[in-house]
Amino acid sequence: MTVDVASRIQRVQRALTAAGIDGLMVTPGADLRYLTGYDAKALERLTALVVPAAGEPWLAVPELELAEAQRSPAALSGMEVLTHGETDDPYTVAFAPLRRAATVAVDDHMWAQRVFALQDLFPDIRWRTPGRLLADLRMRKGPDEVASLRHAAAAIDRVHRRMGEFLTAGRSERQIAAAIAAAIVDEGHVRADFVIVGSGPNGASPHHSVSDRLLQPGDCVVVDIGGTTIDGYCSDSTRTYAVGAAPAEEVAEFYAVLHEAQHTQCDYAKPGVTAESVDRIGRKLISDAGLGQFFVHRTGHGIGLETHEEPYIVEGNTLVLEPGMAFSIEPGIYLPGRYGARIEDIVVTTQDGIERLNTTSRELTVVDG
Amino acid sequence: MTVDVASRIQRVQRALTAAGIDGLMVTPGADLRYLTGYDAKALERLTALVVPAAGEPWLAVPELELAEAQRSPAALSGMEVLTHGETDDPYTVAFAPLRRAATVAVDDHMWAQRVFALQDLFPDIRWRTPGRLLADLRMRKGPDEVASLRHAAAAIDRVHRRMGEFLTAGRSERQIAAAIAAAIVDEGHVRADFVIVGSGPNGASPHHSVSDRLLQPGDCVVVDIGGTTIDGYCSDSTRTYAVGAAPAEEVAEFYAVLHEAQHTQCDYAKPGVTAESVDRIGRKLISDAGLGQFFVHRTGHGIGLETHEEPYIVEGNTLVLEPGMAFSIEPGIYLPGRYGARIEDIVVTTQDGIERLNTTSRELTVVDG
Repeated sequence: MTVDVASRIQRVQRALTAAGIDGLMVTPGADLRYLTGYDAKALERLTALVVPAAGEPWLAVPELELAEAQRSPAALSGMEVLTHGETDDPYTVAFAPLRRAATVAVDDHMWAQRVFALQDLFPDIRWRTPGRLLADLRMRKGPDEVASLRHAAAAIDRVHRRMGEFLTAGRSERQIAAAIAAAIVDEGHVRADFVIVGSGPNGASPHHSVSDRLLQPGDCVVVDIGGTTIDGYCSDSTRTYAVGAAPAEEVAEFYAVLHEAQHTQCDYAKPGVTAESVDRIGRKLISDAGLGQFFVHRTGHGIGLETHEEPYIVEGNTLVLEPGMAFSIEPGIYLPGRYGARIEDIVVTTQDGIERLNTTSRELTVVDG
Repeated sequence: MTVDVASRIQRVQRALTAAGIDGLMVTPGADLRYLTGYDAKALERLTALVVPAAGEPWLAVPELELAEAQRSPAALSGMEVLTHGETDDPYTVAFAPLRRAATVAVDDHMWAQRVFALQDLFPDIRWRTPGRLLADLRMRKGPDEVASLRHAAAAIDRVHRRMGEFLTAGRSERQIAAAIAAAIVDEGHVRADFVIVGSGPNGASPHHSVSDRLLQPGDCVVVDIGGTTIDGYCSDSTRTYAVGAAPAEEVAEFYAVLHEAQHTQCDYAKPGVTAESVDRIGRKLISDAGLGQFFVHRTGHGIGLETHEEPYIVEGNTLVLEPGMAFSIEPGIYLPGRYGARIEDIVVTTQDGIERLNTTSRELTVVDG
């Protein structure tokens, strides 16, 4: 995927000007990758993009990273690269050209030590977060980004389709997770970011990761997995499986409520509706079935160069959806101490609805076990 | 490995008191894992440890993470766990008991958005970095930590011993790196953190990662690899290989200088000498051979729960080494456009010298190719 650095920088500069911010400093992470195409490592040595509201931006990198930085889309498209040596003050080198600015934003995830160093070195500048400035850009995906997310979703779907290889009674969640992590890489990610295997009562803890619990016949197993592809975009999909036998009738009834809720939310989500309304419509359905107290988390999160980013599909988020927004729809129901289930698809808003990027069966699939 | 939470918290509290700091707030990352044994995910929802200089510390976690947090060594040893819901202000919940403090430190890597949120909510508090407070604790490893690092080093050594499987003329650096990454996990890490395969001229860029370049017979290949083990401790070792044939005489001469430098540094390092003096003794030897301009980075970095941490073995660091410090000794020589070589061992200072945790051959090993 080619990153159109010039266009993204221009949009940032327009947003900076509109917000009355004189400049932006971005350290390694998803924001930097978005704006420069540079997948810089987050190291103790400072790498930063500095974007003045007007004029040319620059990258400041350690001398050691110069060769890598020069291969980045930003440098290849002509962005200036400044360097600092092992004994220079990197903040002075990186930021001196903007030292007379009044207000400067830094990326949300800049390290505290860097924030304090900047506040100390440039005490007359008002330092702040970018607010919604970068999130607003990043949550509106271009067609190339949607293509990358579709590619990532297809890769994680291939892993879910292989779940029969992994979910076997007598194997531990940890053993299963290790095999799934390898499959995530095999199927087209550069790394596995997370593998949740919540079997039986562990499935009732939404952020349970893995344990040494051995799968038992008849278990419900929540499998929530994701990774990052070569171009930096993430996958994330959850399915719930039954091990070895069709689930008990009470489980099937409870699962049917969840399935209906997730389906209803996917049918409902479209440009023009708010993020919170997508959450509400699923929550109402689950509450009407008497299970509202067991749906203990928001409906979803945006996804792109990070697994969790804007927009969040949660009560209180009055954001109106627009075409090109990518997020998860992942209601879950969790009966403490007993079992849980979750169904998660990544979706992208189209002109009049959403496209579900994940396409594996959303039934409570029985694996041989 | 069992984390002695109470003892680590006590040491932090003594250091806070000595520094005149009223409290410390730590978000997910190596500092949190060090102090609580809790390997919390860095998510947009706030998880934080708060340690007042006097009195009991507490963990503040999202309701969703409560079950995981309760399984952490900190909670199991009796630390209080506060929770905040999806629509609460997490900073108020987490920090309210300390709101009358005068000076509070936050972990070096706390996200800027959190720093600004705290500065805005509690404007009368002086917020600062912990300075050397946590680094000073973490860089003095206990015997249990040294055992974990030894275990990690043995795992990465097993990967280096298999290098003949991977380094084959005609394969690309990228293909080789993927196979090595899988081997890093196979040999006892929970994840591969980095794989540098710098062949031929790419070996002359110290932080080159991988490319599509195909290995050629006679190439020098710098292989710098590391991962994280189940208990959170990291491995990191570099060896340089020759593909298919003994290297040309000029390469052998250049490599001999590097080998002698690294060996001399390992012989020299011991309690009582400064970090910078370890750097200097190797740099002088390489400079005396006329290659000083090609040793373009510091000698090493500390290692533990992070791959790069204190102490840095670099000019300007006058820290006096003590028993139990763990760091890399990794001089390199890089001839731009031609080739490069680096030899890296993780070492731990003992009572009167160092123990090299990596033990594979430091010769320019010829792999079959």
